[in-house]
Amino acid sequence: MAAWQDNLRVVLVAARNSLNIGAAARAMYNFGFRDLRLVRPYVEAFQNARSAAGAAEVLRQAQVTGDMAAALGGAELVVACSGLERRKQRHVQRQLPAGAAALRAHLAERKAALVFGSEKSGLTREDLTFCDWVTTIPTSAECPSMNLGQAVAVCCYEIAANARPVPQLKTPASVSAADRERILQMLLPVLAESGFLREDGVETQTMTLRRFVNRLRLAPEDARMLQGILRQLHWKLRQPRPDS
Amino acid sequence: MAAWQDNLRVVLVAARNSLNIGAAARAMYNFGFRDLRLVRPYVEAFQNARSAAGAAEVLRQAQVTGDMAAALGGAELVVACSGLERRKQRHVQRQLPAGAAALRAHLAERKAALVFGSEKSGLTREDLTFCDWVTTIPTSAECPSMNLGQAVAVCCYEIAANARPVPQLKTPASVSAADRERILQMLLPVLAESGFLREDGVETQTMTLRRFVNRLRLAPEDARMLQGILRQLHWKLRQPRPDS
Repeated sequence: MAAWQDNLRVVLVAARNSLNIGAAARAMYNFGFRDLRLVRPYVEAFQNARSAAGAAEVLRQAQVTGDMAAALGGAELVVACSGLERRKQRHVQRQLPAGAAALRAHLAERKAALVFGSEKSGLTREDLTFCDWVTTIPTSAECPSMNLGQAVAVCCYEIAANARPVPQLKTPASVSAADRERILQMLLPVLAESGFLREDGVETQTMTLRRFVNRLRLAPEDARMLQGILRQLHWKLRQPRPDS
Repeated sequence: MAAWQDNLRVVLVAARNSLNIGAAARAMYNFGFRDLRLVRPYVEAFQNARSAAGAAEVLRQAQVTGDMAAALGGAELVVACSGLERRKQRHVQRQLPAGAAALRAHLAERKAALVFGSEKSGLTREDLTFCDWVTTIPTSAECPSMNLGQAVAVCCYEIAANARPVPQLKTPASVSAADRERILQMLLPVLAESGFLREDGVETQTMTLRRFVNRLRLAPEDARMLQGILRQLHWKLRQPRPDS
């Protein structure tokens, strides 16, 4: 299998239906992808999917994680597959096939994750804060919402079938989702200590800050520097004030 | 809904699984297609699919037929969706996206059918004799066979999402699949009467002749003439010979 296909991870968040999990795994395998992670799947659904036939290998290797951050570790680019939403979009949207082409270009050199929400409610606002941009499948206005397994199939098809010459990726390297989350987790106590965070809206502020860190697209050396700064700030903020 | 979308009919032959029938209907509706026909579905599967949620309108309007000819009537172009087969191919193969582009160009002006085989065994040799050409989804060699509902979704996506400028279709009009089958059914007794058909291989010869008639791509006026000829031949062959 070509190396670029190993660079794609498919992440299903809170999948509820074993048939959809099995169908997603089979569609991945149909198009040469193997790296599947499940964030908080309904336990029974995952067990049923594993015991079913089909893409047995993909499901056997699939990792289950308790949160998005653990599922995304190592991926430099995180793309959400989501319908167009009525609420004000904070993300860049790239419809297929353009979204697949951009993802494919990235996969030629680096790891990326493609994230799908649950059958019932899609991706939450918090899930979306982990994502760099959103790809949408151009569906009819009359029946816009796709079945999960079919959405995975269409995306995998479009990424794999994208036979156009892959543009050389000249964007600078940036740190992985795990590194970005690490930076966020260093930033939060610093901001809490500093009094920047209001105690009554920590969740919302965390999401806002995650988007902020993601938008930085930090190069590895910049990330190292930022981590050094945060570590230092944290230490400093916790020191007793000489004058108080 | 744009008129070209009304020109596509999806035909499922001998579908066995209600979830696949429902998934196919939903994927059609996701991409603006409504005309579904089912050839010899497993009765229970179709009833279960109808009672399920999802693309209720597509399923309510879906017609069930006993044979391929009835399902295809009115379609000028008949395309099979099928995997690459080991046995010698008699059909032109057009992989997606080229297959979808060719179909899309036809749909801009005229009706076409896209035919899928059963989950278990795909399209039979006889089913394929009704088809003008075959489109294949480019899947991995390790796991080439797709789930039926997912294959329908990928094809519908590719046909609908095909935003490239539609080439103007300058090929001459040709008669519908129903007309071609009518011609075949006029030809067969003529050939039987003439002694051309061997009695021990009628089925194989019928398939060979159907392909032959399809390859003719008859214009309406030529079809009328051919029918006149066949009618005449048939009458003539059944007349008692004066000298015998």
